[in-house]
Amino acid sequence: MAEAVQRERCDLLIDAGWVVPVNPVGQVLADHAVVVTAGKIVAVLPSVEARNRFAAAEHVSRPTAVVMPGLINAHVHNPMTLMRGVADDLPLMRWLTEHIWPIEGAIMGPEYCATGVELAVAEMLRGGTTCASENYFFPDVCAATYRRLGFRAMVGLPVIDFPTAWAKSQDEYFDKALEIHDLWRSDTLITTSFVPHAPYTVNDAGLERVRMLADQLDIPVHIHVHETAQEVSEALAKHGMRQIARLDRLGLVNSQLIAVHMTQLTDAEIALCAERGVSVVHCPESNLKLASGFCPVERLRRAGVRLALGTDGAASNNDLDMFGEMRTAALLAKGVAGDATALAAPQALHMATLGSAEAMGLGDRVGSIEVGKDADLICVEMDTIETVPMFEVISQLVYCTGRHQVSDVLRANARQWQARIAALQP
Amino acid sequence: MAEAVQRERCDLLIDAGWVVPVNPVGQVLADHAVVVTAGKIVAVLPSVEARNRFAAAEHVSRPTAVVMPGLINAHVHNPMTLMRGVADDLPLMRWLTEHIWPIEGAIMGPEYCATGVELAVAEMLRGGTTCASENYFFPDVCAATYRRLGFRAMVGLPVIDFPTAWAKSQDEYFDKALEIHDLWRSDTLITTSFVPHAPYTVNDAGLERVRMLADQLDIPVHIHVHETAQEVSEALAKHGMRQIARLDRLGLVNSQLIAVHMTQLTDAEIALCAERGVSVVHCPESNLKLASGFCPVERLRRAGVRLALGTDGAASNNDLDMFGEMRTAALLAKGVAGDATALAAPQALHMATLGSAEAMGLGDRVGSIEVGKDADLICVEMDTIETVPMFEVISQLVYCTGRHQVSDVLRANARQWQARIAALQP
Repeated sequence: MAEAVQRERCDLLIDAGWVVPVNPVGQVLADHAVVVTAGKIVAVLPSVEARNRFAAAEHVSRPTAVVMPGLINAHVHNPMTLMRGVADDLPLMRWLTEHIWPIEGAIMGPEYCATGVELAVAEMLRGGTTCASENYFFPDVCAATYRRLGFRAMVGLPVIDFPTAWAKSQDEYFDKALEIHDLWRSDTLITTSFVPHAPYTVNDAGLERVRMLADQLDIPVHIHVHETAQEVSEALAKHGMRQIARLDRLGLVNSQLIAVHMTQLTDAEIALCAERGVSVVHCPESNLKLASGFCPVERLRRAGVRLALGTDGAASNNDLDMFGEMRTAALLAKGVAGDATALAAPQALHMATLGSAEAMGLGDRVGSIEVGKDADLICVEMDTIETVPMFEVISQLVYCTGRHQVSDVLRANARQWQARIAALQP
Repeated sequence: MAEAVQRERCDLLIDAGWVVPVNPVGQVLADHAVVVTAGKIVAVLPSVEARNRFAAAEHVSRPTAVVMPGLINAHVHNPMTLMRGVADDLPLMRWLTEHIWPIEGAIMGPEYCATGVELAVAEMLRGGTTCASENYFFPDVCAATYRRLGFRAMVGLPVIDFPTAWAKSQDEYFDKALEIHDLWRSDTLITTSFVPHAPYTVNDAGLERVRMLADQLDIPVHIHVHETAQEVSEALAKHGMRQIARLDRLGLVNSQLIAVHMTQLTDAEIALCAERGVSVVHCPESNLKLASGFCPVERLRRAGVRLALGTDGAASNNDLDMFGEMRTAALLAKGVAGDATALAAPQALHMATLGSAEAMGLGDRVGSIEVGKDADLICVEMDTIETVPMFEVISQLVYCTGRHQVSDVLRANARQWQARIAALQP
């Protein structure tokens, strides 16, 4: 009689029709499984082998689904989810000055921020997004809310040249920023970045101080840059140079820079971004909705610039749907480049996962299904009328999958705690 | 004692949180009801009044939903739904010549067309689309399949300068076209149009014959026009004029013309289309995906050209999602016009409903909720995480509603038969 083979214990084994690890780009593993222990991915292997090798405390079987990394939204203003649809079909400056800023002036505060983040997390999780880069006021409240809900976030520490309900002076913005950074510096879910609002709303002294502190604390600088042609022409009039040149003069154009929007770019600016390791966050739907301009995504990609994807706030999108955003990015890049091969589906998926993670300095922890990474995973049901027939899994994910097809969101920590608690039971 | 008030009988009373009739554009009626008898809309009035005035055989109550006209997809190649995702991220001519045409050459036939239309109807109905303008071969099979499934369609009668599995010669295309037109001429659900493929695939003689017969039979001419810049430059080389000028010379630029794509347009061409009452079908996602160019939707709208909306075939989109297409149209129009006020949400909704109906010659029957029209209605649930808070109903429908929020599809005829059958029962 054959000797019983001892199987390795694991917390969770998910076998699926397909595993899409994202790294390497374009790879699709049919009938594979992902094995998780203590919140970390410990193996990715054919399902048959996985079942022979591992004894799982929990076994999730999704034979008609894709398992992939959770989507990562690299640019949000999530408290603004409460302003979804409050003022549409308006140009950027009228939208800001006549609607958004007056409303914020009247209602912004801890309760507003907590409630907005709660609504946003519910929407993000239902749609397969497991991590976001937050850019708003009251980062203390935002961070605590994400933490309480077990949602992974990089929370921005705002700096802007005018007083708000959050801070009255540049000094106060920086004092509060340092305090909050210190509070969360060793958290496993929450990280921080500096978020000077934009080059046109933060003066040279403020930007220099951001650079100095970001270097010191080793955190990214997440900022709206070259969102519109107007921004660039105003910079030329005021500073005698484009904002990217000004940021460069102030020492900010480096691998810590997360530049959001970037619709106005010369070839030299693109080359500079590639050389310095800048990350560009593309927000296609917000750029279209506010008629801000077209980010030259394919030119950036060909130049080797790191690309991430974001929805922007729900007030200018009007959703936090990263499946929709991936699709818009892939479609729009082709129209803008005049080239139907631009930003192919696997590249769009990379932007929405590992590209975003790398931009946020989380590329070693999340964004792909690789052994040793945190198990932020989602399952996406593909056996639906809308996604048959099935020729190419990644094409299907990008061009016709709706976020409502997300069947499971498996956040590393939730499962980890679940397993620990289960182990305590008789 | 008060005398009992006699209420009017009706087949169906739907009361809803909001009724969006589409005509007038932008109107939202809170707490209203739509009353249907014999498949026709007989009243639109406040819900309280409706319940007092009508005794309904069936009462549908949707207090958190919008009732609106079913969406109308003005350009599909539905048998191609079976080729969804078979060849993505390729330029138009390589996509057609190396992938789509060889596959069609090998498999096109009655079974392929019937199965593709079945899949497409399932997808369309689930997503709130109740009518489509079909443009494919084997229109006999397509028409019979739509009829069998109770789906309203305008079925195109194809003409193209090369032999296919459907017809071997120009004469055969026309003979079959006339036969099919005759078969369906008095049907209540199926109408017909001529679909010469494109100006570059049908010669002058063919186009002239299309015009003559379309005039005679009083049916629209549905044709791909100015899809790419290459099409226009080839026309200049071959005919010494742009294709729109050529179509005009052949007498086709008139109110029966349904011109699809139209990404290349001069101001004079736009003025000509407005003057002659041409309908333009915008297919934004297909135009982006194939990098065909940008249709100047806002310029057309301001010139007074009738605008309709279509997904194009699922092989170049890759879905039949009219909610998604409305959203892309509204977003892209702003980017292309460089104007955030371009194609506001109510205008995008009009394109996807009444605009499409009018283009197809069905404007007196469907496309809006008006007394006397056929009751092709849908309910869209708005009490979901993704569509709260609710400031503007039509913004919400266009910018953040997913097609999976469609809760009911109430096709006039289905309800009509249901009521008749119910009336026969003891």
